[in-house]
Amino acid sequence: MTRDDDALAARIRAVKLLVFDFDGVFTNNMVYVFEDGREAVRCSRQDGLGLAKLRRRGLAMCLLSTEVNPVVTARAKKLQLRCIQGCEDKGAALDALLTETGCTAAQLAFVGNDINDLPCLTRAGLPIIVQDAHPDVLAYGLYRTTAPGGHGAVREVCDLFDQVLG
Amino acid sequence: MTRDDDALAARIRAVKLLVFDFDGVFTNNMVYVFEDGREAVRCSRQDGLGLAKLRRRGLAMCLLSTEVNPVVTARAKKLQLRCIQGCEDKGAALDALLTETGCTAAQLAFVGNDINDLPCLTRAGLPIIVQDAHPDVLAYGLYRTTAPGGHGAVREVCDLFDQVLG
Amino acid sequence: MTRDDDALAARIRAVKLLVFDFDGVFTNNMVYVFEDGREAVRCSRQDGLGLAKLRRRGLAMCLLSTEVNPVVTARAKKLQLRCIQGCEDKGAALDALLTETGCTAAQLAFVGNDINDLPCLTRAGLPIIVQDAHPDVLAYGLYRTTAPGGHGAVREVCDLFDQVLG
Amino acid sequence: MTRDDDALAARIRAVKLLVFDFDGVFTNNMVYVFEDGREAVRCSRQDGLGLAKLRRRGLAMCLLSTEVNPVVTARAKKLQLRCIQGCEDKGAALDALLTETGCTAAQLAFVGNDINDLPCLTRAGLPIIVQDAHPDVLAYGLYRTTAPGGHGAVREVCDLFDQVLG
Repeated sequence: MTRDDDALAARIRAVKLLVFDFDGVFTNNMVYVFEDGREAVRCSRQDGLGLAKLRRRGLAMCLLSTEVNPVVTARAKKLQLRCIQGCEDKGAALDALLTETGCTAAQLAFVGNDINDLPCLTRAGLPIIVQDAHPDVLAYGLYRTTAPGGHGAVREVCDLFDQVLG
Repeated sequence: MTRDDDALAARIRAVKLLVFDFDGVFTNNMVYVFEDGREAVRCSRQDGLGLAKLRRRGLAMCLLSTEVNPVVTARAKKLQLRCIQGCEDKGAALDALLTETGCTAAQLAFVGNDINDLPCLTRAGLPIIVQDAHPDVLAYGLYRTTAPGGHGAVREVCDLFDQVLG
Repeated sequence: MTRDDDALAARIRAVKLLVFDFDGVFTNNMVYVFEDGREAVRCSRQDGLGLAKLRRRGLAMCLLSTEVNPVVTARAKKLQLRCIQGCEDKGAALDALLTETGCTAAQLAFVGNDINDLPCLTRAGLPIIVQDAHPDVLAYGLYRTTAPGGHGAVREVCDLFDQVLG
Repeated sequence: MTRDDDALAARIRAVKLLVFDFDGVFTNNMVYVFEDGREAVRCSRQDGLGLAKLRRRGLAMCLLSTEVNPVVTARAKKLQLRCIQGCEDKGAALDALLTETGCTAAQLAFVGNDINDLPCLTRAGLPIIVQDAHPDVLAYGLYRTTAPGGHGAVREVCDLFDQVLG
């Protein structure tokens, strides 16, 4: 984004709720599989510093993940992020969240990376995709991060918001 | 593949059974080794969305792995894939699977990455290799994925099938 | 650095205390998150050989990390490095360390990678940043390693000191 | 290597004993550190197929590692490789191995990656270094693998030997 990108800046200023997909956004979309079936994921430490900046501004933030997975719970807890899991239909889950928070679609930013995020990306006033999003979702992002998922994409979004909000 | 690649499309339309090698196809061919000898592997979350598309089409799919390894079992279970392990001779195991399923070699697609996959690649009507397959198997693939193993190769195969099958 | 970089060499010769941030310096700034919330990090084996060289020279070295984390303790122990953790204000922690050791700011080198290192980078006579430091700290380094954090940055600093000290 | 590289081929044909360093050769020189201090490493599955080829030829092979580490033991066991660990002085350990096996230095090939391998690289008739070896050892290799450590370097050495031995 350039500072001239007034349209993007206006959308960012309108945001009251910032929702993130987890896999492929906070992670490189990889999963480590152990012999007993347990899993692990790889996240970037730099995301925490960015989220802290937006938290201090009072911006509402939330994780939204299709699968119920303890690693998502664990990471969300560490990052002090609310976490909604186990939603087969991410669009419906997002609608419920908008109703609950009283936010409009125009006040919603969503960060995603794959086709199961399409119902959220199409709902959000500010749909954001990560650099290495699946080709089938590239057309649905208003902003595409320079950083790939799990390699600073979340931090980049936070820094962008922080910069625009001044 | 271009849409003009009619020969490839015809082969894909003939496929009734899609068999995958595990290491180097679902993974980056790496293994994480722990102090107690247990292992872990790294897979891509995006594969699941692709496999789900083909499952909804009713395509038979199977994992075939030389070694008996709990991580393969764990990943196969998560992906709802049948899994055949512990076959020193992958060719013989594949023959047995063809007999069991009543599929012909022309109806078989196989995705592999190394020399122990040669008996399968040479049997399959549609032999597929991943981008970073070992040099000694490059000549045996009719299709070579753009994505390396463990970095979207499986998803790419699924998306390709899904696109061709329309 | 070129051998002509006399200014840098002079600063290195003045150093009595070399302090490292941990995440993003000894690691690639990534964290592996497990289902039970436990974490792991990835370090480079080559760092140990470099630190051993400086230890033999009697240079005082220390790890300084904001968060209290068992993985930092574990790695510090393996590398025989003193480790100060749990300092919300890294600058204050560094001041206390300077007082304790009797070192001046000019005798301090600090290696960091992100904005929470700024109080340390601005205090140190020789502020060093890793190749993949956050853009917001790039201006604060007098030396920027060629190697990214977790991929030889620490070794590079050690080799540089060892070479200059002759 | 080109087929014209007769000198290299002659040295390979003379080899009776192939010794490998572990970290940085079988691995990417990284170590995963857990909260309890335990470690893990990442190896390449492809190495096993290469080692099996040389084992079938009857070539004696061995792992030599400075540190006593259970992950090395675990990987060596899986690969059916003899493993010598806990040798502060790798050169002395190699001398003992030569005496035990009755091999001469000219019959020894050694694969290493860092300065603690120098006593072995200088002893071996065929010193081999991996692509991403430390700059300080680059001059000591007669052959430098195209593949980095942990990304096929061992397999490349095995394939090279297998090809030359015909």
